[in-house]
Amino acid sequence: MRHACILAGGSGTRLWPASRRRRPKQFLTLGTGESLLAAAVRRARGAAAGQVAVVTAADQAAMVAAETPGVAILAEPVGRNTAAALGLAAVHLAHRDPDAVLGALPADAHVADEAAWARTVERAFAAAERHDVICTIGIVPSRPDTGFGYLEVGESLEAALGIPELRRVVRFVEKPDAATAAAYVAGGRHLWNGGMFFVRARRLLDDIRRFLPETAAGLDAIAAALVRGPDEAAAAAARVYPTLPGISIDHGVMEKASGVVTLPGDFGWDDIGSWAALVDVRGRDATGNTVLGAAVVVDGRGNVVAADDGHLVAVIGCSDLIVAQAGDAVLVIPRARAQDVRQVVDALAARGLDRFL
Amino acid sequence: MRHACILAGGSGTRLWPASRRRRPKQFLTLGTGESLLAAAVRRARGAAAGQVAVVTAADQAAMVAAETPGVAILAEPVGRNTAAALGLAAVHLAHRDPDAVLGALPADAHVADEAAWARTVERAFAAAERHDVICTIGIVPSRPDTGFGYLEVGESLEAALGIPELRRVVRFVEKPDAATAAAYVAGGRHLWNGGMFFVRARRLLDDIRRFLPETAAGLDAIAAALVRGPDEAAAAAARVYPTLPGISIDHGVMEKASGVVTLPGDFGWDDIGSWAALVDVRGRDATGNTVLGAAVVVDGRGNVVAADDGHLVAVIGCSDLIVAQAGDAVLVIPRARAQDVRQVVDALAARGLDRFL
Repeated sequence: MRHACILAGGSGTRLWPASRRRRPKQFLTLGTGESLLAAAVRRARGAAAGQVAVVTAADQAAMVAAETPGVAILAEPVGRNTAAALGLAAVHLAHRDPDAVLGALPADAHVADEAAWARTVERAFAAAERHDVICTIGIVPSRPDTGFGYLEVGESLEAALGIPELRRVVRFVEKPDAATAAAYVAGGRHLWNGGMFFVRARRLLDDIRRFLPETAAGLDAIAAALVRGPDEAAAAAARVYPTLPGISIDHGVMEKASGVVTLPGDFGWDDIGSWAALVDVRGRDATGNTVLGAAVVVDGRGNVVAADDGHLVAVIGCSDLIVAQAGDAVLVIPRARAQDVRQVVDALAARGLDRFL
Repeated sequence: MRHACILAGGSGTRLWPASRRRRPKQFLTLGTGESLLAAAVRRARGAAAGQVAVVTAADQAAMVAAETPGVAILAEPVGRNTAAALGLAAVHLAHRDPDAVLGALPADAHVADEAAWARTVERAFAAAERHDVICTIGIVPSRPDTGFGYLEVGESLEAALGIPELRRVVRFVEKPDAATAAAYVAGGRHLWNGGMFFVRARRLLDDIRRFLPETAAGLDAIAAALVRGPDEAAAAAARVYPTLPGISIDHGVMEKASGVVTLPGDFGWDDIGSWAALVDVRGRDATGNTVLGAAVVVDGRGNVVAADDGHLVAVIGCSDLIVAQAGDAVLVIPRARAQDVRQVVDALAARGLDRFL
């Protein structure tokens, strides 16, 4: 059976002050009526016939439950990156359903064309069900972004495996520099690694055992406890999780595994890695600005302006700025420096102003 | 007896969003522990032996009473500019004290050197007590500001009238253009008109009768009612105020009156006509920015940043901006355009966002 597994572990400081330590990015609505997490769960329910689990940090479990009622929650005692998170999910799914196919999806991405997304996800689940593969969805790049890892794609497997558009993955490549990213986009053989992949739970556990034996040992202890009951499994997780290596599923497994394939995804996907990304996600209004909430821009273009409900941001005579008000904090930064929000976060921590983080 | 009369009728949209329709500029603390009004009353109490009245709009009377406990309040039913406000004050003072000397002072100016201010005010009261003059205090200009009217000064009256530094006023001049303002400052014969003057209440009423007969007729009705009691005077004011012409004391009386003299005031005075003025009033911190409240500026200079208590404003990679958070609103505007805040106010009104004004 198909199971969607949504990873909701991010901290999202790049969207400060909207995202905070206690309200990571996936809980933001960013001017829509629906949080990124709620949208991810809604899409996943459609794609996986309602079998949806969210893997999250224990201290976010209550927020996840409130935000997405009825979803299964797997709470991690501490964060140990995505190999552990998806291993934990695979242990639970394989326990309930030996034939479970797991679809790993991020909690905090934007999807513009949900119908196209659903068609691609349907094929990716089918590929993992019918073949011994790990099927990623690689995003067709819309710009030479240096913030993503890329997948280099090889020959078509459409005829061989009977899945339209399916291709072999030749290799995973790290986040490139600007020139390399431009070459990737121009060459047409690279896709963004958006962290979406589909694989049988048992196959994933086998690969973890092969490439990450320490992680596998910990997961074995959790699996053994799970036979005795969910509380026992949680106790085992609390015991073994701190000992697990913190490593990503990409780096720890996907880059080494055989039979990794991909489907190109072209559905207006964006991971909203910074305030600047909202220009693409939300577009510009008649004044040439991107506005979330109530804002008045006079004599300025290309600004991204965000205000909480009931609040107002007024910008006059400024262009290409990000002005974000959220709760008790305001951020002003040039759009071209959106990635440098981390410097503010560092400065606040250095000055003992952690309460605003 | 000396009486200080503080005019607190302003709206102060130029300091939006800190100043609002319901919280005009004089109620702002601007990062100090004391509102401009409270500071004005405190200074005035020292200069006038405690005889202090605040003339304000009826709908601000409760706020004034809360802000400056124990002060006498003269509430105007509607605003009719400073000739009416000071005429009303003169009527009340002359009723209680036929020899009253009135010192008119603004409620919303900053004074850096209060000892120097007190020395000048002492001389101004003395000049009005001993001689049949209207003694203004003209501010020694620190810059060629085009936001003030100017006083052109004439010969010294120090020897003739026995008041150090006293000079004749040749004429009042309107707000100049930039070139004219620069010539005024270079020439050394012009002072800013800061709206401070000292005169016997009866002399002021005589001048109003001479130059503003409509205003005088209204004030006569209030004075007649005052003989019957304060409630009767308030009722008369409510009746006659709407009929009074709205005209400034400068334009209606001072420019036409004889015996107008001035004392140069050099005590770090500023009317804080915009957010940009706070650079002079508050100075710059070690990072080259002017900060009111909690702010973090990374990689930027010359900004004016204001945040309410418990709030934070973070600015990165921007210089010479005004970023002001107050209550439910945020303003971002280049410092050089500080006077254009009015455009935001107009835009808000046009879009039905008056609730933020």
